[in-house]
Amino acid sequence: MIRIGIFGYGNLGRGVECAVKQSKDMELVAVFTRRDPKTVKILSEGVDVCHADDVLSFVDKIDVMILCGGSATDLPKQTPYLAEYFNVVDSFDTHAKIPEHFANVDAGSRKSGKIGLISVGWDPGMFSLNRAMGGSILVDGCDYTFWGKGVSQGHSDAIRRVEGVADGKQYTVPVERALNEVRSGSNPTLTTREKHTRECYVVAEDGADKAQIEKTIKEMPNYFSDYDTTVNFISQEELNENHAGIPHGGFVIRSGKTGVNKENTHIIEYSLKLDSNPEFTASVIVAYARAAYRMNNEGMCGAMTVFDIAPKYISPLTNEEMRAKLL
Amino acid sequence: MIRIGIFGYGNLGRGVECAVKQSKDMELVAVFTRRDPKTVKILSEGVDVCHADDVLSFVDKIDVMILCGGSATDLPKQTPYLAEYFNVVDSFDTHAKIPEHFANVDAGSRKSGKIGLISVGWDPGMFSLNRAMGGSILVDGCDYTFWGKGVSQGHSDAIRRVEGVADGKQYTVPVERALNEVRSGSNPTLTTREKHTRECYVVAEDGADKAQIEKTIKEMPNYFSDYDTTVNFISQEELNENHAGIPHGGFVIRSGKTGVNKENTHIIEYSLKLDSNPEFTASVIVAYARAAYRMNNEGMCGAMTVFDIAPKYISPLTNEEMRAKLL
Repeated sequence: MIRIGIFGYGNLGRGVECAVKQSKDMELVAVFTRRDPKTVKILSEGVDVCHADDVLSFVDKIDVMILCGGSATDLPKQTPYLAEYFNVVDSFDTHAKIPEHFANVDAGSRKSGKIGLISVGWDPGMFSLNRAMGGSILVDGCDYTFWGKGVSQGHSDAIRRVEGVADGKQYTVPVERALNEVRSGSNPTLTTREKHTRECYVVAEDGADKAQIEKTIKEMPNYFSDYDTTVNFISQEELNENHAGIPHGGFVIRSGKTGVNKENTHIIEYSLKLDSNPEFTASVIVAYARAAYRMNNEGMCGAMTVFDIAPKYISPLTNEEMRAKLL
Repeated sequence: MIRIGIFGYGNLGRGVECAVKQSKDMELVAVFTRRDPKTVKILSEGVDVCHADDVLSFVDKIDVMILCGGSATDLPKQTPYLAEYFNVVDSFDTHAKIPEHFANVDAGSRKSGKIGLISVGWDPGMFSLNRAMGGSILVDGCDYTFWGKGVSQGHSDAIRRVEGVADGKQYTVPVERALNEVRSGSNPTLTTREKHTRECYVVAEDGADKAQIEKTIKEMPNYFSDYDTTVNFISQEELNENHAGIPHGGFVIRSGKTGVNKENTHIIEYSLKLDSNPEFTASVIVAYARAAYRMNNEGMCGAMTVFDIAPKYISPLTNEEMRAKLL
């Protein structure tokens, strides 16, 4: 059994807890939190809930520590630090800072002789893998990533900060026409506005100026001004009832040409339709935790990403079973 | 530069030749044929066309030999034999015999200390990878593979063997309703007939009994009797004009559930739409030839499949570039 620790217990941590339960070769040993452990109720029975400060007393009891904090401030510190003691997996998703994070985690992992697997999930993660493989196979071509339909946490937060807004949720929606243009193999050049729209569901405070709220949202730089944005005012009850989930998904499409005169077009499309963004991310992370454990057992160490992991390491099947059943 | 040899020069061999041209880090050294080399005209200038019997004189001149023969009789002999001398890549696709072929190639590769990478292409190959990864991530679920719309060589051959048939082509077509049922996450049980239909385009000989031809095709066991089959009689000109290509493609869909009570459904879909089946297969093979070369340079040897190859090895980019640009 691979012994798993969860460091940070929010939506992602709970998702990891569920995914570990679904994995027959894994057991959850402990959940670590910065809150008072007595106040944190987890889903599993017989599993320790400990304070984050006590994590080092588990060095010999946990094979892989899964970090479930945020990319803004938690992971840049936590992953390199814990990598000095454990095999670690995180879902660091600030794309621009990945090289820096990789170097920091690598330094930690080299000290411990463990594996530090970063940026695991679906983007970065499965989408990255498909961008890389599509580009390696269809050398002469373009790739396109579309996100949604799904909830963007950052944009929902931005809406809720607008004056007069009591609550709100934002969906990123890929534009069907753009998707189909890409699927046709025409390798179009698409602007930000042409690729995605933004749908906002907003609960206004009593007596708030709805026209002003709508204007403020639509003109918000970085978040909304470059997109066709729709603002729908609804009641809190309606928001709670119809928009409580955290769905997401998206598409990675590679379009490329082959042949003597590049006369043949090929389309590779990878898509996800997810009821729960954190639970799917957690499922990817848990599969890759298996890889970190196995590869470290084979003597490998240092920082890695999904690009460094052969698929055999993430599967619960043996190599022989994989070849006989899946190839 | 990675020095490539092509062993066998049909549609796949020509596809490999084109794909090598598109790869900046590779050069084609020689094409090997069992025909009289003087009768074989290739697309590249300045490249040797040699008899298959002379292949061993190239042991020090070729880094990876790409085998482009058929799975029925060529590859079971050629791949294990050439693995004793070269890094080899093949597209062996007789699914049931893969374990046996793997063992034979492994024996050859261990002798030479080279890598023998088998069953590379899209199915087996990219589709296998997606079946494996989907099942590793969404543990509680089902996967479905649909093929088409595309030309099946075996079924086209079967049509042409029917009495009174001058020429013909068969398309395998996935049933849209079944695809959508799978995409809904309902994990349906689907019969052979519910998943695919078969469309035949047949040129009858002068005076042939078309009704009898249609009946013979539709009732042919293994090939057609388990499917809803349509037979369209057309002229040779029409066949040549509208059905000359070798398009193919298909879908691998994994549908699975997560959450405390498995309340959330997720769909992973990978699809291919290919103008030329052999050219796309060749493009996959050439990317994996890069992996065979690099991994052997790192000291690895023995038989392998796509499950054993970390994505970094197939990309022309460096690891740093991949992390910075694609993750």
